[in-house]
Amino acid sequence: MMRVAFQGELGAFSQVAAAQLAGKRFTPVPLPAFDAVFAAVANGKCDKAVIPIENTLHGSVHENYDLLLRFDLNIEGETFVRIVHNVIAPPGVSFSRVRRIYSHPVALNQCRKFFEKHGKIERVPFYDTAGSVKMIMRDSLRDAGAIASAAAAEQYGAVILRKSIEDDPENFTRFFLLGSGISKAGINKAKRRRRDPKQRYKTSLVFNTRNVPGALFRSLSAFALRDLNLTKIESRPLRGKPWEYLFYLDFLGHVDDAPCRNALNHLAELADTLKVLGCYPAA
Amino acid sequence: MMRVAFQGELGAFSQVAAAQLAGKRFTPVPLPAFDAVFAAVANGKCDKAVIPIENTLHGSVHENYDLLLRFDLNIEGETFVRIVHNVIAPPGVSFSRVRRIYSHPVALNQCRKFFEKHGKIERVPFYDTAGSVKMIMRDSLRDAGAIASAAAAEQYGAVILRKSIEDDPENFTRFFLLGSGISKAGINKAKRRRRDPKQRYKTSLVFNTRNVPGALFRSLSAFALRDLNLTKIESRPLRGKPWEYLFYLDFLGHVDDAPCRNALNHLAELADTLKVLGCYPAA
Repeated sequence: MMRVAFQGELGAFSQVAAAQLAGKRFTPVPLPAFDAVFAAVANGKCDKAVIPIENTLHGSVHENYDLLLRFDLNIEGETFVRIVHNVIAPPGVSFSRVRRIYSHPVALNQCRKFFEKHGKIERVPFYDTAGSVKMIMRDSLRDAGAIASAAAAEQYGAVILRKSIEDDPENFTRFFLLGSGISKAGINKAKRRRRDPKQRYKTSLVFNTRNVPGALFRSLSAFALRDLNLTKIESRPLRGKPWEYLFYLDFLGHVDDAPCRNALNHLAELADTLKVLGCYPAA
Repeated sequence: MMRVAFQGELGAFSQVAAAQLAGKRFTPVPLPAFDAVFAAVANGKCDKAVIPIENTLHGSVHENYDLLLRFDLNIEGETFVRIVHNVIAPPGVSFSRVRRIYSHPVALNQCRKFFEKHGKIERVPFYDTAGSVKMIMRDSLRDAGAIASAAAAEQYGAVILRKSIEDDPENFTRFFLLGSGISKAGINKAKRRRRDPKQRYKTSLVFNTRNVPGALFRSLSAFALRDLNLTKIESRPLRGKPWEYLFYLDFLGHVDDAPCRNALNHLAELADTLKVLGCYPAA
């Protein structure tokens, strides 16, 4: 079975994303930190990794953008997960007995209205959403709950007391499926083999330009002049060159299509460095 | 005396930035959170605020970009502070007696080489760099140190045992000086009054475009076609519209100069929304 690494505990939202990206049959490999997740695929201990890359409320996960540059992995897919927060407790604990609720601080903050309505319930910051379910089950707490995904409740045999308590329903996270880095020719060959003509594709890349007026504008012309639609641009500091930046771009198109190939060649002329991070079916 | 709000404890790097931006004579008002810092100026309890906006190693402080949009404050200045980390201890504690060192996790991580060299010293995460100096002084710890700015050592009467232990010397943070929001006409009038002809200016703004191919490219043309140099672009998620973005731009130029004024008018034609956040002397 395919081994899929992700950050967090069993039942994390990344595991939900992994099920969408890798199918139901895989061995989940939860790891404590994002760099360990990248390393697990780079050193062959896992076949794939699933990482969050951006969230509609909080923006990009910058650590993972930096790791995409540091490790030579290939983006093979993307998916969106709606972040649904639930109040979860050990079986037999009723909602009226819950005095405190554990979860990751970001999750607690995304359920402010719930805590305003239930003013007597204390919020307790914990290192992980799924990890908070694991803990209340392990310690058989009778007056505490956790906020986490339905998958976390299922994982640890806990029950959902209140469903979907998040303030903002338009809370989605985008995840990448990463595979081991193979040569550019290899990637293209693999992509051609399983290319679906009805499927839209996205290409992700990272580049940096000389620090001259109009450099970013000229770089974007490579796409605009070919009517290619950018779906994301993210800037990150360039290490060792204060106040210069790397740009991460996603655009709709497959690297084998002539306009995309030409755009990449055009950008390569203008950029100091250019690295294609992957070409994958758009979610 | 001018009251200047910032996040953190007395002696924080933001206070160092405040001294560069507001002169030596001001009353520092340390506050626990960034939104409280913005609110203090918005509700008139403080005259100015100083906030970090980006760091050459870690990138942008996204929370503050979001707060610039939420509050109607005006960017009045910018400055750069080199982040120098020092080992600080109560007077009389020698380096050889230090068994553990407290600091903010980011600061601890920026001094990895120091901890590798001194393997017996334990790293203890704390909520704040200057706050860790405050704590070791308050508790008169005899076997502990803190990592913080020289200003923090001075603030609490502690001594510096080791200077500049950070791994990467190219660690700078850019700070903004914020004033209360006044009408656009008012800003321009104020700017004209104290404009220095030898000084370069920067203008900061935020906009969003319709989600159509080439929208960002056309927006940037407003600057590129007038040879205006962008110094920063940052994208943030647009709340309520998943996978659409706001763009924050900084460019070199004064809003009263014809090319800048024309560029802003041109961008206003292309953008769905446009807000000028400030026009200030470039650091």
